[in-house]
Amino acid sequence: MPEQVRRALTDLVHDVPDYPEPGVVFKDITPLLADHDSFTAVVDALAASGRDADGAVVVDKVVGMEARGFILAAPVALALGAGFVPVRKAGKLPRETHAVSYSLEYGQATLEIHRDGVAPGERVLLVDDVLATGGTVAATRELVESCGGDVLGVAVLLELTFLPGRATIGDLPLRSLGQV
Amino acid sequence: MPEQVRRALTDLVHDVPDYPEPGVVFKDITPLLADHDSFTAVVDALAASGRDADGAVVVDKVVGMEARGFILAAPVALALGAGFVPVRKAGKLPRETHAVSYSLEYGQATLEIHRDGVAPGERVLLVDDVLATGGTVAATRELVESCGGDVLGVAVLLELTFLPGRATIGDLPLRSLGQV
Repeated sequence: MPEQVRRALTDLVHDVPDYPEPGVVFKDITPLLADHDSFTAVVDALAASGRDADGAVVVDKVVGMEARGFILAAPVALALGAGFVPVRKAGKLPRETHAVSYSLEYGQATLEIHRDGVAPGERVLLVDDVLATGGTVAATRELVESCGGDVLGVAVLLELTFLPGRATIGDLPLRSLGQV
Repeated sequence: MPEQVRRALTDLVHDVPDYPEPGVVFKDITPLLADHDSFTAVVDALAASGRDADGAVVVDKVVGMEARGFILAAPVALALGAGFVPVRKAGKLPRETHAVSYSLEYGQATLEIHRDGVAPGERVLLVDDVLATGGTVAATRELVESCGGDVLGVAVLLELTFLPGRATIGDLPLRSLGQV
């Protein structure tokens, strides 16, 4: 992990207490995104999950989850020479979708993917900002698998270790740039 | 405009009739995003709005509008060596914000920016997928100006010329990679 990534996570991710509801401490990554060098370093570190030990790209698509996931996943897809595929909240994708409903850290949600978003046999990396309960990642994995794709792993900026995210995602390889 | 961008807009942006409501033809850019070479070409073409005639970068921040705007604006910010700043729907940003309400092609919306998202005097490029009525762009310009920033221009993938977007944004320089 480059020192720049460590510094970015320490200095440029801010705790916002009681957001979006009392008792939740929100991790605000916007100061990191506003700092070009930090954002670049983080994208490079996340993209490492799409390469093998020799540096060869091993994924065809990078899936990002609405909305903050888009901000990280699109640049990671571009860095890897892979296609970008959005997973969106219910009703936001215009063509035929697969849908999955699940519980998240605060509330309930339904996510969708275009049925042709991932082709059968394609290798997929999931990218999001924060791994909390793991519900979003597990739902997204299910969506990709509904398309016939293979999820090779998930890469996140931050893992909230006091929540059961790692247990929820089971055997899915996880790269988290920071743990809190 | 490179031939690759023209081809991407023709072949990889699909019309979806009657979405999200009857009578609206939705421009689905997801096939373009899934094609790495096309996505790269489009990001490069949008980023040209952040450079002067000699190719020097003239913006400090790139602002993307939730949610599809994030997918294009974040890579454009990285390409320009600029910071990325999200403009989000009401209630999604965790710290103190400026807010603007406006009408959009179908419905009403409120957008917000963190008060410290743009510093006074910073030069800003707005990036979004589609210019429709121009309401989103006008509201975002207002938000950036509330922070004290200067909006140098707006870059979009597609301009819907049957809607009054260009008139709404007034004197703001616009680069649209395609017009329909």
